[in-house]
Amino acid sequence: MFQSFETTANPEQGPGRLAALRAVLATEGLAGFIVPRADVHQGEYVAPRDERLQWLTGFTGSAGFALVLPAVAGVFIDGRYRTQVKGQVDLAHFTPVPWPEVKPGAWLRDQLSQGVIGFDPWLHTADEIERLEADLAGSGLSLRACDNMVDRIWPDQPAPPMGRAFAHPDALAGETAAAKRSRLAEVLRREGQRAAVVTLPDSLCWLLNIRGADVPRNPILHGHAILHDDGRVTLFAALEKFDEAVRAHLGPEVSLRPVAAFVPALRTLQGPVRVDKGSAPLAVSLELQEAGIAVAFADDPCRLPKACKNASEIAGMRAAHLRDGAAMVEFLCWLDARLPQGGLTEIDVVKALEGYRRATNALHDISFDTICGAGPNGAIMHYRVTEESNRKIVTNSLLLVDSGGQYRDGTTDITRTIAVGDPGDFARACYTRVLQGTIAISRVRWSKGLAGRDLDPLARAALWMAGQDFNHGTGHGVGAFLSVHEGPQRISRVSEVPLEVGMILSNEPGYYREGEFGIRLENLIVVEPAPALPGGDAERIHLQFETLTFVPFDRRLVVTEMLSPGERDWLNTYHGQVLAHLAPRLSPAALAWCQEACAPI
Amino acid sequence: MFQSFETTANPEQGPGRLAALRAVLATEGLAGFIVPRADVHQGEYVAPRDERLQWLTGFTGSAGFALVLPAVAGVFIDGRYRTQVKGQVDLAHFTPVPWPEVKPGAWLRDQLSQGVIGFDPWLHTADEIERLEADLAGSGLSLRACDNMVDRIWPDQPAPPMGRAFAHPDALAGETAAAKRSRLAEVLRREGQRAAVVTLPDSLCWLLNIRGADVPRNPILHGHAILHDDGRVTLFAALEKFDEAVRAHLGPEVSLRPVAAFVPALRTLQGPVRVDKGSAPLAVSLELQEAGIAVAFADDPCRLPKACKNASEIAGMRAAHLRDGAAMVEFLCWLDARLPQGGLTEIDVVKALEGYRRATNALHDISFDTICGAGPNGAIMHYRVTEESNRKIVTNSLLLVDSGGQYRDGTTDITRTIAVGDPGDFARACYTRVLQGTIAISRVRWSKGLAGRDLDPLARAALWMAGQDFNHGTGHGVGAFLSVHEGPQRISRVSEVPLEVGMILSNEPGYYREGEFGIRLENLIVVEPAPALPGGDAERIHLQFETLTFVPFDRRLVVTEMLSPGERDWLNTYHGQVLAHLAPRLSPAALAWCQEACAPI
Repeated sequence: MFQSFETTANPEQGPGRLAALRAVLATEGLAGFIVPRADVHQGEYVAPRDERLQWLTGFTGSAGFALVLPAVAGVFIDGRYRTQVKGQVDLAHFTPVPWPEVKPGAWLRDQLSQGVIGFDPWLHTADEIERLEADLAGSGLSLRACDNMVDRIWPDQPAPPMGRAFAHPDALAGETAAAKRSRLAEVLRREGQRAAVVTLPDSLCWLLNIRGADVPRNPILHGHAILHDDGRVTLFAALEKFDEAVRAHLGPEVSLRPVAAFVPALRTLQGPVRVDKGSAPLAVSLELQEAGIAVAFADDPCRLPKACKNASEIAGMRAAHLRDGAAMVEFLCWLDARLPQGGLTEIDVVKALEGYRRATNALHDISFDTICGAGPNGAIMHYRVTEESNRKIVTNSLLLVDSGGQYRDGTTDITRTIAVGDPGDFARACYTRVLQGTIAISRVRWSKGLAGRDLDPLARAALWMAGQDFNHGTGHGVGAFLSVHEGPQRISRVSEVPLEVGMILSNEPGYYREGEFGIRLENLIVVEPAPALPGGDAERIHLQFETLTFVPFDRRLVVTEMLSPGERDWLNTYHGQVLAHLAPRLSPAALAWCQEACAPI
Repeated sequence: MFQSFETTANPEQGPGRLAALRAVLATEGLAGFIVPRADVHQGEYVAPRDERLQWLTGFTGSAGFALVLPAVAGVFIDGRYRTQVKGQVDLAHFTPVPWPEVKPGAWLRDQLSQGVIGFDPWLHTADEIERLEADLAGSGLSLRACDNMVDRIWPDQPAPPMGRAFAHPDALAGETAAAKRSRLAEVLRREGQRAAVVTLPDSLCWLLNIRGADVPRNPILHGHAILHDDGRVTLFAALEKFDEAVRAHLGPEVSLRPVAAFVPALRTLQGPVRVDKGSAPLAVSLELQEAGIAVAFADDPCRLPKACKNASEIAGMRAAHLRDGAAMVEFLCWLDARLPQGGLTEIDVVKALEGYRRATNALHDISFDTICGAGPNGAIMHYRVTEESNRKIVTNSLLLVDSGGQYRDGTTDITRTIAVGDPGDFARACYTRVLQGTIAISRVRWSKGLAGRDLDPLARAALWMAGQDFNHGTGHGVGAFLSVHEGPQRISRVSEVPLEVGMILSNEPGYYREGEFGIRLENLIVVEPAPALPGGDAERIHLQFETLTFVPFDRRLVVTEMLSPGERDWLNTYHGQVLAHLAPRLSPAALAWCQEACAPI
């Protein structure tokens, strides 16, 4: 079993740890300290030694940070975690702050008129610190890079992870690492950069066609790389992670060095050195600048090429989705048969689902801890069930299941919301509106050049018309046997990155009623050229999405009359495809279930 | 008759004038000169003396500029004018350049390796020149402020306009000028500014509750104002424009000074002086800076308050739209009766329409030259019919009519596309998709905080699905008995200004097939709070649009089966409202026509 159901948060230990942190801040002359969720790689999953925010506050969400001041400790959490945080931190000692609505700079100015706020320059990007400094300009507050104060008071902080690296075969990657290094080196030469620093683990894995095991769920390797303008790479990582096979796979143009060699190597580079302000730790550019080396701030050069998947990667994703879709249908069939007997809990459901994925004999890991929210737990957007929170699934309710698998050929991420008995007309109307959003994104064609921001409203229009909306983006980028959340592509109000052919995204509108229920429907989609249409504008290049996920939506929750003819056609066509793709892979019982689930409405 | 049908462009005179301009540039040591469409007030309508772009090139569009170099003269035009420009300039001497796709800086660098490009600092904003300078950085090209070189070679350049100013009554304005001056002065004091320079004529008219007659179509006064932080205003304009009545209306806190006193007055101000980088001529900030006065760059302080109409202004707009709507229906009734007899031309239609508007006895002016495009002329987005271009309206085609009226209580702007005989299934399908865009914007509710950019995709989604789109924004701001195009509100891919209650906009998706036909459907709409809905999210503030325009859409062009039930309901409800609102105002024949036009589909 990959997933565990322990309560990792220790809200009751928060106050003591907070007091210890304040004591050490006082001795350092600091008025405050920033405790981010991020690690040095700015990844979403962090190793146990980097779970500083959770260790201090109890909050287990995948994003956020704490600002610890003498009289108040603010826990900044985004819209997904508003409900969750209330149950995880000791509210007498920690104050949840809605973020990004409240900016940390403004909040600090409200709380404190003067003082120095410490931060660990390895855990923050240059962008972050610049923004915060700008927001504090003219106040009596300033920032100071310092040692990590949480590490000082964490006696049993775990050691860094030592997961084994392994090769990602060229057949799945679709391009050799040598070819990738060479085309990125050409970019550096064209832009007059002598080297680029790569600190994002998924960039590094993509560039070198390797994978790792340093954090759960995402097959990434913790390390730093320097890409030189001749295509050579120096990789800084714990040497124990690399066996002979993977060293051979890396080849002679990739030199492997210990982690401790990273900073000295930075200080001997020739400039200009390309550094990503938005992902590299501030410490990287500080070290370069202190050594008198010119820094060229620009995107991580792997970010965009990695996001635009090639034909082999897309083929792998398709295969992974059919395998995963069949497992999902076996699970849904089991669930529908099991639910009427009663007594099922969220944990039972999570275990069963992981079992069906394991039964594929191809599951490398789950791609994140399954979110299984029964009734009101469905409204907690990134809910992770524990023995304490575990709810019985009662009749006449909704069950939200958001899950995915990591397979060697691809990464999946799917959400379905399931009727348990009769959840009522209101829930069905909400479900239908969410489905209309999913369908709008699935069907849309658009002129090349538009960004995810330009499509995001289409996913919400049906909800808006009912005075409803959801507090998260419509879609995130997804890696190919890499991070289930990857940039830069997104479908979101804040995403200005033009969508390009090969980008894979989630399409996951939702609707949440705190204390009542949650609905989310999620497929993965990939950007592809749209065929010319008769009567269409010849001069425009149109793009569209291919849907990768094939699993039925719950027809029992669809209010047919609310759908337009086009929406209804899309749903029936999709269900026809689900059945056609999955039928050869299903057990007889699941096939019968799937036939019923995919019947036209 | 307000509208004239003369060919104001003189393409055949362009080459001689271009040669004269090049000669004078050579004597000044300039490698080039920028000839903008803009006047010193950055208005869309300019006085005849400011029609430099048209005088030089022949191009009569409402936006664009020329870059005149020794070997080439580029005429930069946006998507609306791609077709029009080809018929208006001598293509052997002028080169149309698609803008903003091609940036002037990049184009200059391609054409010329070195030299000094001259520009008139009174005709360009600081923003414009800064952008261009940034784009030329590192090249051998530079910019130099100089006298206007076109004025030097324009022997019979007309004198500045001398339209009479007149009072805009408080009852229509909804707020006294004293109250406006006082609340804006408070803004200046709060932001630590001693004065603000106002150069936008509609801002000045709004602030002082006056109107003018210096350009056709928009009842604006050419002048500059300085708003002091105590609420006093110094107004610089030709004194002859002001009779005793309007001087009394301005009151003792507004000092009237001649235009020539403006620059000397600037140079004696106490700083910081607020200047709008995006609308004030660069010369304003240059003069202040040369005199050692601190400049605070910030929005024209009238811009946002002017955009958010108060209850009196909205009531006036509603009244103007019912009056104008009745005139439109009389016109459409006449047109439907007259078309089958044949022989009608675009000019006949424009004249008839203006006649119906004049018959209201309340028409102050038309709000822009009517765009009446028959068949392929409909695809020329801002087509203005002349005796030369005038087309017969032939059967089995589409007729696009975009027009509006200036009334003392409000400004209208409406487009309808009309079936002449049977324009065919393809045209009907395109019309229906455009209508779906109009309906999507008309019906939408959204969470407060969103900008026009976030709604724009909804107007296009139906077209996108057919591989179609249109090359203009979905909506522009509209003034209340002021400019028919006003900022900052827009529904457009590039508009980041949050929509606020009281903002009036057009809702005008379109579809154009060059050489075939054009379709555009336009209503004016005003932002209002949306009522809470049962089941809606209590914590969100939702906004919606009230539609101001009441004129039927052409039912003969609607493919009913393409509409969703909600779209169909919207159309039938709207047509019901049209009939209810207009019936008491219509002649018996027009009422009968309107009843048929508004019958449910």
